[in-house]
Amino acid sequence: MAEFFSVLPPDEARALILSHTRPLNDSEQISTADSLERVTVRDLLAPQALPTFRRSTMDGYALRAIDTHGANEQLAAYLKVVGEVPMGAVVGLSLGSGQAAIVHTGGMIPDEADAVVPVENTQIADAGPSGRMPFEIEVLRTVAAGQNVIQVGEDITAGEVLLHAGSVLRPQDIGALLALGITSIEVVRRPRVSILATGDELVPPHVEPGQGQIRDINSYTLAALCRKAGAIPELKGIAVDDRAELQMRAADALAAGDMLVVSAGSSVSVRDLTVEIIDKLGEPGVLLHGVATRPGKPTILGAVDGKPVLGLPGNPVSAMVQFDMFGIPLIQKLQGLSGRPPSRSITVRLSRNVPSESGREDYVPAVLEEANGELVATPIFGKSNLIFTLVRSDGLIRVPLNRGGLLGGELVELTLF
Amino acid sequence: MAEFFSVLPPDEARALILSHTRPLNDSEQISTADSLERVTVRDLLAPQALPTFRRSTMDGYALRAIDTHGANEQLAAYLKVVGEVPMGAVVGLSLGSGQAAIVHTGGMIPDEADAVVPVENTQIADAGPSGRMPFEIEVLRTVAAGQNVIQVGEDITAGEVLLHAGSVLRPQDIGALLALGITSIEVVRRPRVSILATGDELVPPHVEPGQGQIRDINSYTLAALCRKAGAIPELKGIAVDDRAELQMRAADALAAGDMLVVSAGSSVSVRDLTVEIIDKLGEPGVLLHGVATRPGKPTILGAVDGKPVLGLPGNPVSAMVQFDMFGIPLIQKLQGLSGRPPSRSITVRLSRNVPSESGREDYVPAVLEEANGELVATPIFGKSNLIFTLVRSDGLIRVPLNRGGLLGGELVELTLF
Repeated sequence: MAEFFSVLPPDEARALILSHTRPLNDSEQISTADSLERVTVRDLLAPQALPTFRRSTMDGYALRAIDTHGANEQLAAYLKVVGEVPMGAVVGLSLGSGQAAIVHTGGMIPDEADAVVPVENTQIADAGPSGRMPFEIEVLRTVAAGQNVIQVGEDITAGEVLLHAGSVLRPQDIGALLALGITSIEVVRRPRVSILATGDELVPPHVEPGQGQIRDINSYTLAALCRKAGAIPELKGIAVDDRAELQMRAADALAAGDMLVVSAGSSVSVRDLTVEIIDKLGEPGVLLHGVATRPGKPTILGAVDGKPVLGLPGNPVSAMVQFDMFGIPLIQKLQGLSGRPPSRSITVRLSRNVPSESGREDYVPAVLEEANGELVATPIFGKSNLIFTLVRSDGLIRVPLNRGGLLGGELVELTLF
Repeated sequence: MAEFFSVLPPDEARALILSHTRPLNDSEQISTADSLERVTVRDLLAPQALPTFRRSTMDGYALRAIDTHGANEQLAAYLKVVGEVPMGAVVGLSLGSGQAAIVHTGGMIPDEADAVVPVENTQIADAGPSGRMPFEIEVLRTVAAGQNVIQVGEDITAGEVLLHAGSVLRPQDIGALLALGITSIEVVRRPRVSILATGDELVPPHVEPGQGQIRDINSYTLAALCRKAGAIPELKGIAVDDRAELQMRAADALAAGDMLVVSAGSSVSVRDLTVEIIDKLGEPGVLLHGVATRPGKPTILGAVDGKPVLGLPGNPVSAMVQFDMFGIPLIQKLQGLSGRPPSRSITVRLSRNVPSESGREDYVPAVLEEANGELVATPIFGKSNLIFTLVRSDGLIRVPLNRGGLLGGELVELTLF
C-alpha cells in the first residue's frame, strides 16, 4: 500500500491516479464513416492537395483577368463566350485572349483562365442566333486575377498534417478524411471498464427485493456514464461481502478490462474490506482512501500495473459524482487524451444559500428555472442515498474548495448533466 | 408552393418549418439498461415507494430517540445493545425500551426504533464477556426522532410521477427506473433521416475522382450530425442533376424516412431545380427559399404531410451550419422534444474584428487559444467550400442579426462543435 492514506483535494487526487494510468497501446482499423468520436492513433498527413483542380466559387464566366482591366459600368469590357464547362467533367475547351466560358459554382476553371466574373456583374451584349454560342458579354467590373477561384491546395496541401494523433473525430473531420479518399482509419480501441457491485443487500433489477434488500442500480448508472464517455462498460454482477469471493471476482474483473470500478457498500467495514481487496490486486494497489468532497469522501483510488481502479461509495449520488470526477478523466487518459471532455457549463443565479465547509469541494444538485429573464438554480438538499435527488435536478453546482459556501443571489457555474 | 419566397431571419425560418413538422407517433419497447438518451413516450408513475423499508444513513445503533433524551458528554444515556441487523436480511429482533441494535449504513431499522445514533457519538460502557451481546453503550448526544433514518417513500412515493413524457433519459433516470424494477421502457422510435446528395460532379468517397469531380462528403458529415442528435441517417446515394431521376429518388428517399435532406449543388440552376423537385413532392412543398444567414443563405425549407424537407447548399461548411440550425431542432421535434439540445457555449474574447452586415446572422468558425489566462477566439475567414476551415476550428461564433459585426476585444459566445 502506498504511503498515502489521508484525504486529498480532488485535483490532487485526480492527478495522482492519472499518473498511475497508462494509455491503451491498442488500436483498430475501422470505416471512417463510422468513426464519430473515436480517437486517432497517429498524425495523419494529406495524401494529396485539395482541391485537386481550380474551382469556381460563383456562377459566372471564367476568363483572363487582364481582359477585364479597367472595365466599369460606363466602359464595359467585351468578351466572347465560346463554351460552357460541364460539372464533373473535363473542360474540353481552351480560351483565347478575349474569350470566356460559362462556369457553375464548383466547376473547373479552364487552364487559360485565372478568374471568374459573377454573372450579375455582366450582361449579354449579343445573344447570337437563338442564344447559342459564341455570344458576346459585357463585363461591368474589373476582375482581379484569382478572384472567385479556389486554388489547387487552398483547402489543404499534400503532406500537410490533416489530423494530429489524439484527435477526437468530429463530423467535419470525417468529411475531410473522406474528401481525401481515406475511407478507413486507425483509432484507439474503446476502453473496457469492468464494473463490479458489492453488497449483501443488493439484488439485480429484475429481481423483486426481499426484506432489507434493494436493487443494484450503480452498475447501470455507471455503465451509462461509461458509454457517454466512449468506453465499453462490462457488468461483472454483484459480489457478496465475502473476502475470498470478492478478491477473486475483483481480480477477474480487472483482468477482463482496462479499468476496474468497484461499487461498494457505504458502511465502514465494507469500505475497509474494499480497500484491502483493491490493495491485494497488485502494485501499487491503493493510492488514496478519501477525497475532500461531498458527496463521495470515502472514494478509494488505486492502480494495478497501469490500470486504474476506483472504489466508489454505494450511495447512488456519491457514485455518480465521483465517477464524473475520476472515471471520465481516466477513460480519457486510457484513450490517450488529456483533460476531460468539455462539459456543458452555464452561469446561473443561485436562489438561496448553500452552506459548505472550507477545505472541501461540494457538489450540490440543482434544478433550473427561468425567472425575470434569467436562469435561476435552486439547490436540492437530499441525502446522497436518494437517486431521485439527481432525477429531479438539471445539473450540479460546485462549491469550491476554499469557500465556506455560496450565497443566494450569487452568479455560479452549473454543470448540466 | 407556399406564398413565402423571400429571405427570412433564422428564428422565423425555423419556426416556420417546425410548425409543418409532426412528431413521430411511433414507439418501441426496449431494455431500460440500453435506453440512454432515448425519449419517453408517456408519463411514468412510480409503481411503489422507495425505499420500501426504513434505512440507516450511518454506521451506528438503531434505538428509540426518547431513550436518549437529554444525553450529553457529561450525562450519557445508557442503552443495552441486544443484536445486529444484518445487511440485506430481515431484522429478526425486536427492541424493548432502553435497547439498541447495531446497524450499518443502508441497513434496515427495526420496527420499534425511530432513529440511529452514529457510532462516533457513543462509547462502549460494558463490553460483556469477550465482546458478545448484550453489551452496554453510552450515548453521548441526544438523538431526535427520525435522525439518520431514510423514511419509506422519502426517495419517491407510490403513484408519484417518476418521469414525464418527453424526457431524454440520463444515467440517473435509468438508475431510478431500475431501482423500481422497471427493466423495459417504451421510447420514441429514433427518427430516420434520408440523405440524398445531388451533383454531376460528385463521386462516392471510395472512388478516385476524375477531372472536375470531387468526392461526396456532405452525406457523411450530415450523417454524423444526425447520429449525434439521436437520429438514424440513411444514405440514399448520389443523384445526377436530371429532373426525372432526381424527382423519383427524392420521392423514394422521403417515403423511406421521417425527414429528407437534399444536399444539392450550389449553382443557381441546380438550386432552382432542387426547389422545383421539393415542391413537387407533395403538400405544402417548399415553404421558404432563403435564410438571412451566412453561410447558407440559399437553404430551402419544405415539408410534405408533416415530414420536413431540407435543401442544403453543396458547400460543406454551409451544409453543416445549416443542418445545425434546422436539422437538429427538426430531429428534436420529430422525437416530441421542443427546443434544441443544450449546446456547449462558452464566453471568449475575440482577437480581431469580424465584419458582417446588419440583417444577416453570420456564423464564423474560430480557433481557441489560451492567452493571458483567458480563452481567446480567432476567427478563420475561409470560403465556405473549404471543409478544412471547420477542421481547423473549435467552434462557431455567431454574429447576431442586427449587429454590423463584432469588435476585436469583445466578449462573445462561441458554440463548441
